[in-house]
Amino acid sequence: MEKRTLIYEGKAKQVFTTDNADVLWIHYLDQATALNGKRKEQIADKGRINSAISALLFNYLTAQGITNHHQQQLSPTDELVTKVKITPVEVVVRNFAAGHFVTRYGVAPMMELRPAVHEFYYKSDELDDPFMNDEQLVALNIAPQRELDELRVIADQVNVILTEAFRAIDIKLIDFKLEFGYTATNQLILADELSPDNMRLVDLNTGASLDKDIFRQQSGDVLTGYKIVLERLTNYLTANQL
Amino acid sequence: MEKRTLIYEGKAKQVFTTDNADVLWIHYLDQATALNGKRKEQIADKGRINSAISALLFNYLTAQGITNHHQQQLSPTDELVTKVKITPVEVVVRNFAAGHFVTRYGVAPMMELRPAVHEFYYKSDELDDPFMNDEQLVALNIAPQRELDELRVIADQVNVILTEAFRAIDIKLIDFKLEFGYTATNQLILADELSPDNMRLVDLNTGASLDKDIFRQQSGDVLTGYKIVLERLTNYLTANQL
Repeated sequence: MEKRTLIYEGKAKQVFTTDNADVLWIHYLDQATALNGKRKEQIADKGRINSAISALLFNYLTAQGITNHHQQQLSPTDELVTKVKITPVEVVVRNFAAGHFVTRYGVAPMMELRPAVHEFYYKSDELDDPFMNDEQLVALNIAPQRELDELRVIADQVNVILTEAFRAIDIKLIDFKLEFGYTATNQLILADELSPDNMRLVDLNTGASLDKDIFRQQSGDVLTGYKIVLERLTNYLTANQL
Repeated sequence: MEKRTLIYEGKAKQVFTTDNADVLWIHYLDQATALNGKRKEQIADKGRINSAISALLFNYLTAQGITNHHQQQLSPTDELVTKVKITPVEVVVRNFAAGHFVTRYGVAPMMELRPAVHEFYYKSDELDDPFMNDEQLVALNIAPQRELDELRVIADQVNVILTEAFRAIDIKLIDFKLEFGYTATNQLILADELSPDNMRLVDLNTGASLDKDIFRQQSGDVLTGYKIVLERLTNYLTANQL
């Protein structure tokens, strides 16, 4: 596979075309941003760790029947994925209250949310990714209702599978963000990345944050948590041949 | 009926208990506020006009089968209503894009929204009435799903009836806010007031705003529009014995 043109550069990764029109090349960067990109820092080794966690989780989801864009790890920071047309709707799943959910709705941090809450955000840099409800998204032709229903169903399945896997390694899955896209054959599948950049994870024993909140709050070495997540996931998934 | 204790004072009205435990006395004030109460002005005659418009619309809705709290007009600024336990969820119905919907979602002003959009807001002064989706309201025990479903159904019926009535008097119903409450027998009914304080109305012929936007934008005499609405409604509903 040959890497060709850079078509997208995001907060923590670059995306290239390849000589196969249906395949993209993702390169993970050693970079973290907060405050919607206003704060940016180089963090050595972050690309490798995120790429490894994401590959492990995508492969695990594939084994559990969740179709996703991940195809193959090329190097510690590079992977091949199925090219999709990303949908403009991000899905946030919340099992416990954290972050702006706490301040915006005045609830106790870590309050359990049952059933888990799904939130749709419209991906738009100019509008700062506004939170929207189903009827708004439908009326503005951002997504049809059947797509929103499908996003909710897949997000729910992913939540059940990931919650269980993290619980097995003593980690509580607080919330996470998913992105989706349509393949060339118009199948809606999970895309983007699955790493502590897009999830809140808490050590069940110590209560320590193992995700990007460490970076957001400038409260310590962000990679300490990421490394724990990677190590436990590797041991668990390898030991159980998952 | 005897007026007793003041139990609530809002932006534009006062609510008193009466000698009947199931009945409240509402007094409309000559007052307008904007910016969530930060700007407040006395506007002579506003109480009378809002009370009259609200009574006309509630009586019309009753005739069309929509149960609501309005019982009887006592004076030009006073009415009796059924006492209800107000639900903490406000419903906004939007037929056309206006106000913060335009800026928040980057759409053209007056863009038609089909089907009409419903939005739920959690009534909370401290939290500044946040916009919420169904799953958030359910998970935080603010409202069960069946109540949200019922609010949506009633709001839709009210929208059809009011849109039609306003169209008959050359007025376009852009959007409006509804509040609901439970009666002593636990029936969910429409409450609060129905006036240009809670709706956006535009003259179909001139395009002029006939609602509180005139006050919000300090663009003219707020009552000019309110008086037009009252006059046309009175003529139409009286002429058609509605």
